[in-house]
Amino acid sequence: MEQITKIKVGIIGATGYAGEELLRLLLIHPQVEIGGISSVSFEGESISKVYPSLSGFCDMVLSDEDTVIQNSDVIFASLPHGLSEPKAKKCLEQGKSFIDLGADFRLYDEKDYQQWYGLTYQEKDLHEQAVYCIPELHRSLAAGRKLIGNPGCYPTSIALGLAPAVKAGLIRVDNLIIDSKSGVTGAGRGLSQTTHYPDCNEAFAPYKVAAHRHTPEIEQTISGLAREQATITFVPHLLPVNRGIVSTIYADLKQEISLEDIHRQYDSFYQNEQFVRVMPLGSFANLKNVTFSNMCDISLHLDVRTHRLIIVSTIDNMIKGAAGQAIQNMNLICGLPEDTGLHLVPPAF
Amino acid sequence: MEQITKIKVGIIGATGYAGEELLRLLLIHPQVEIGGISSVSFEGESISKVYPSLSGFCDMVLSDEDTVIQNSDVIFASLPHGLSEPKAKKCLEQGKSFIDLGADFRLYDEKDYQQWYGLTYQEKDLHEQAVYCIPELHRSLAAGRKLIGNPGCYPTSIALGLAPAVKAGLIRVDNLIIDSKSGVTGAGRGLSQTTHYPDCNEAFAPYKVAAHRHTPEIEQTISGLAREQATITFVPHLLPVNRGIVSTIYADLKQEISLEDIHRQYDSFYQNEQFVRVMPLGSFANLKNVTFSNMCDISLHLDVRTHRLIIVSTIDNMIKGAAGQAIQNMNLICGLPEDTGLHLVPPAF
Amino acid sequence: MEQITKIKVGIIGATGYAGEELLRLLLIHPQVEIGGISSVSFEGESISKVYPSLSGFCDMVLSDEDTVIQNSDVIFASLPHGLSEPKAKKCLEQGKSFIDLGADFRLYDEKDYQQWYGLTYQEKDLHEQAVYCIPELHRSLAAGRKLIGNPGCYPTSIALGLAPAVKAGLIRVDNLIIDSKSGVTGAGRGLSQTTHYPDCNEAFAPYKVAAHRHTPEIEQTISGLAREQATITFVPHLLPVNRGIVSTIYADLKQEISLEDIHRQYDSFYQNEQFVRVMPLGSFANLKNVTFSNMCDISLHLDVRTHRLIIVSTIDNMIKGAAGQAIQNMNLICGLPEDTGLHLVPPAF
Amino acid sequence: MEQITKIKVGIIGATGYAGEELLRLLLIHPQVEIGGISSVSFEGESISKVYPSLSGFCDMVLSDEDTVIQNSDVIFASLPHGLSEPKAKKCLEQGKSFIDLGADFRLYDEKDYQQWYGLTYQEKDLHEQAVYCIPELHRSLAAGRKLIGNPGCYPTSIALGLAPAVKAGLIRVDNLIIDSKSGVTGAGRGLSQTTHYPDCNEAFAPYKVAAHRHTPEIEQTISGLAREQATITFVPHLLPVNRGIVSTIYADLKQEISLEDIHRQYDSFYQNEQFVRVMPLGSFANLKNVTFSNMCDISLHLDVRTHRLIIVSTIDNMIKGAAGQAIQNMNLICGLPEDTGLHLVPPAF
Repeated sequence: MEQITKIKVGIIGATGYAGEELLRLLLIHPQVEIGGISSVSFEGESISKVYPSLSGFCDMVLSDEDTVIQNSDVIFASLPHGLSEPKAKKCLEQGKSFIDLGADFRLYDEKDYQQWYGLTYQEKDLHEQAVYCIPELHRSLAAGRKLIGNPGCYPTSIALGLAPAVKAGLIRVDNLIIDSKSGVTGAGRGLSQTTHYPDCNEAFAPYKVAAHRHTPEIEQTISGLAREQATITFVPHLLPVNRGIVSTIYADLKQEISLEDIHRQYDSFYQNEQFVRVMPLGSFANLKNVTFSNMCDISLHLDVRTHRLIIVSTIDNMIKGAAGQAIQNMNLICGLPEDTGLHLVPPAF
Repeated sequence: MEQITKIKVGIIGATGYAGEELLRLLLIHPQVEIGGISSVSFEGESISKVYPSLSGFCDMVLSDEDTVIQNSDVIFASLPHGLSEPKAKKCLEQGKSFIDLGADFRLYDEKDYQQWYGLTYQEKDLHEQAVYCIPELHRSLAAGRKLIGNPGCYPTSIALGLAPAVKAGLIRVDNLIIDSKSGVTGAGRGLSQTTHYPDCNEAFAPYKVAAHRHTPEIEQTISGLAREQATITFVPHLLPVNRGIVSTIYADLKQEISLEDIHRQYDSFYQNEQFVRVMPLGSFANLKNVTFSNMCDISLHLDVRTHRLIIVSTIDNMIKGAAGQAIQNMNLICGLPEDTGLHLVPPAF
Repeated sequence: MEQITKIKVGIIGATGYAGEELLRLLLIHPQVEIGGISSVSFEGESISKVYPSLSGFCDMVLSDEDTVIQNSDVIFASLPHGLSEPKAKKCLEQGKSFIDLGADFRLYDEKDYQQWYGLTYQEKDLHEQAVYCIPELHRSLAAGRKLIGNPGCYPTSIALGLAPAVKAGLIRVDNLIIDSKSGVTGAGRGLSQTTHYPDCNEAFAPYKVAAHRHTPEIEQTISGLAREQATITFVPHLLPVNRGIVSTIYADLKQEISLEDIHRQYDSFYQNEQFVRVMPLGSFANLKNVTFSNMCDISLHLDVRTHRLIIVSTIDNMIKGAAGQAIQNMNLICGLPEDTGLHLVPPAF
Repeated sequence: MEQITKIKVGIIGATGYAGEELLRLLLIHPQVEIGGISSVSFEGESISKVYPSLSGFCDMVLSDEDTVIQNSDVIFASLPHGLSEPKAKKCLEQGKSFIDLGADFRLYDEKDYQQWYGLTYQEKDLHEQAVYCIPELHRSLAAGRKLIGNPGCYPTSIALGLAPAVKAGLIRVDNLIIDSKSGVTGAGRGLSQTTHYPDCNEAFAPYKVAAHRHTPEIEQTISGLAREQATITFVPHLLPVNRGIVSTIYADLKQEISLEDIHRQYDSFYQNEQFVRVMPLGSFANLKNVTFSNMCDISLHLDVRTHRLIIVSTIDNMIKGAAGQAIQNMNLICGLPEDTGLHLVPPAF
């Protein structure tokens, strides 16, 4: 009965955390077949040797990027910044689609990329074809495209939290303060003293204060929604949990408005979105309720004493903040229902 | 195309941890429709108010047990021991199937129930119809039945770990030592000082040493496999993680045999089982690789100095140790492929 | 040689977390002798039965408050708000000192107490004698006093973080934003779903957003330092660790000033304080470095793009934020060196 | 008044976890002065740059081993095995005392060292002077010695748990089964995938099953107590907490004896020991009650069905299992009261 031709997908950089999570989710995607997976560090080994959790579900051998591209229609790359352009070029030249989970196709303005990443664009024409896409906000731009810059984890949580208020002009966007907290998978699979268990457990600290590379990406998205230049102060913290991001956003209201009205606007903005839940007034967004799913939960709060709107937005950094959203984008550009393979009910514990 | 009539299922006791996990898994089961859910404590409230993680996925209102039974073909109960008999009776009288996640239909010998639970069987004929079923070991007994005693979490991890060695007569069963460690969800949703975060975090201790109620259930299963009386020393510990059980089992080998031979027998025993993975020699079963899935991982080790076999068996206590296995049993008695709805690839982190 | 008469101290409410921590620290204080401990819930039991960690170090039986007061020169109370006034009255009438770890003697303006705690002051004259004392900021006020309102945990971390900048007039105090994160002991020993291990572990969420009772206490202290009315937005979050508070404070600089200059002012402000460490520029305050000690670590950061000062201040909520500071206050009013018994080197892990 | 000459102590390998913990404890030892600290990796840096937690308490610069030896009377070494002999030789030649926290002076029988560590003794005469010393069991041997092999963490927990039963001949020592669980600091400060936070958090697994190098050390101690050859099966597990070891020990009773009688013998055996607590019958040893202290808690349990004694013994692996016991040994060989500087009341949370 199931005669639909499946999409052949490949993953370049499959042994990093985002790559592995993507593979895990693609394994249960009903319209997808794994064409190939690659890893520079583990080429020639079975993925299930690197990740025994996958044993029996996927024991594919890790190959090189060219093999992956050759055997796939849609290629995902999960690589450190600065490495994706040549891969994207190869894919597009062969008529294939490329979804980049790294940072190389997220910033429209090359100056931002130069300033924050210290590199220039080598393939400028590619960047004209690329679309940065949080589907809930940009899906109309992505339809028909072959090159997607998949958003960063912090920016996704923040843009979804701010969008309705920004679009409706309720808040000032020139002095936003965003205090974010991320689980340790956000730092990746690579070893560091910071992520060594005894250093990280029962610990909490900020890092890259007002200097995180997601800053221009966040400002780009908010500016786009606001149609004016947004300026943020952004401070990320390392949270001793495996998964999840919570962003607490402080925004000055432009005019008098009740929290109930703001809530109604949020409800309305997201009424047709299945991956965003505007929580009832009086409740608090908790990463517990979204981890292991593609959901974004948003709770709204008003500081009546200071006339400030406080938005709390939470996602699973590895799913809605990376692999899940990449699949959502794949579904989008491939003409599948956007939630295909993403019906992940978050566990309660 | 999907015109297959779905099975209507109900859950009595849906707000406990096992009940909620069952609901979560049933929501993604392709052949199932939720007929009703009940809770004595939260009757009349929406389940998603109790568990905001379910919001949008299931906002059903919690009703009473009679409504659940009426609207369902298969009824699961997740209740404290001593409460399931009357529910089972009602269901069977109405021609419905009953799967008990509690302890009331696990022990064949009423004396064991009296000794360890301090209660007697009120409906003795029901117990003659009931089957205790770890599908990998007892599926032939369950086919066609309407009343299933779903196994406990510790016993599942232990029986699966021991079965091949016991069936092959490799080890003595009269002096087994089993040292188990369980995540905190095993203690349920009810509040206690022991499970208060600051008391439980960065803590580790045994409990109910040589006095846990799962002891007779484990001995019953091992005795059944061995066809002789098994006797165990069983010590459970509370592990500061949410999910997962690891059982470290110490068994005396009856005769000289190499670890490779034992490993081959395990491989062969479980070769057609998709929920059991016998790990390669030299690796160690880790709960990390099975949580959020229906898998059981088993690693085998030999203490050559003492001629003792050490078996490490790990499952997710809430899935293979409760809700997942209950669904596996439902599939079994309903004639569905046993893995329907249980294709849960364990996350690596 | 050690013929100095020891101070006899008592604790009312010794079985709560702050009470127990206080007892633990007092047991190693060289100038102190425990006169008595009381608990309404556990009267008549040994404290080491409630807290087996104390076994052998203190097996004293919990008595009632009158016995404690009678046998002590300095009485600490660690009670829910609204209960301390009559205890304080009794102590002062008997010529004894009273240090309140609760909220009843923290707010100078009764209107604040009414607004945020919903109660009025019964013994107004007591409040005229009471001094709110973070020793580093208010020690001159406390000398010779017999009634101390020991500061709250959040306010301590925040006031110490802000004091140098506020006193020097570097920042605006009318639009401060404070995003704080507290370990779970902050919620106390009482059971709740929020602090049930599986609900709390691998979770993170704000609570009492812009509505926490520490708000007026913080504003009172900052206003006092600034000599103008301070207004803050304060959002606390529950952090899945046992101990520690991190406060991330966002402040607008009034005029152009380099981070180096700010850092110098902080260094100078705290140069004689042994419990406050201004961290080197470029490092990040981490609760890991202060837990189990009376230290406060402060790191300073400048968002050059928005001209905003970001101050990160961290303490152990149970020590500098409660029991340790209470002992510091006791030392102060008893004429002992302020660090007596508080030479607690923070463990690195 | 305090005119007692302090002991000058030095630490070789001060930046490893055990070295740093030792330094932290020595900083509050009243009879000790730090003569020097060394580190090959961080020579020339301040220790407080490596461990900011020490800032203000100890900002000493790390030097080389010769400087440390020259400036100290007692030298502690915390090094990987195979490196301590030449350091010990230098110290003894200069008339100084040497306490080795590593494995090189723990095994009396060189064959054990060869078999389990793959190395031979280079300085055989040193080994004749060395004493392996768990003070509660071997203090009479250590008095007057200058070279101490400080016991391993697992062996300490196990030997203290078994000693009274073994000395009294209550149990068989030829088939002991020991299931131990250790916090992650036991794996040291060095980075590895196993101790990377996301791999280690919410995980649990055994390692080095029946192959851990502490095995011969444990058997040596038990054999010494029993005056017959002991044989154990020893399985360690990695526990997702920072600190603490729990050893669950399974022993066959030689003859009929009540648990009360066994408990009495334990009580009597340890009645004069301040670092060992035999818990009341019915309670369970929990690492929570001993971490951050030099205590060992022991709980006793009887499996009446199998006539097996179950002993649960718990210590802080970094204190009683390493640095604290090393100080206890220093006190012992220096003629100080054994508990000097070790009056560490364990925190309850």
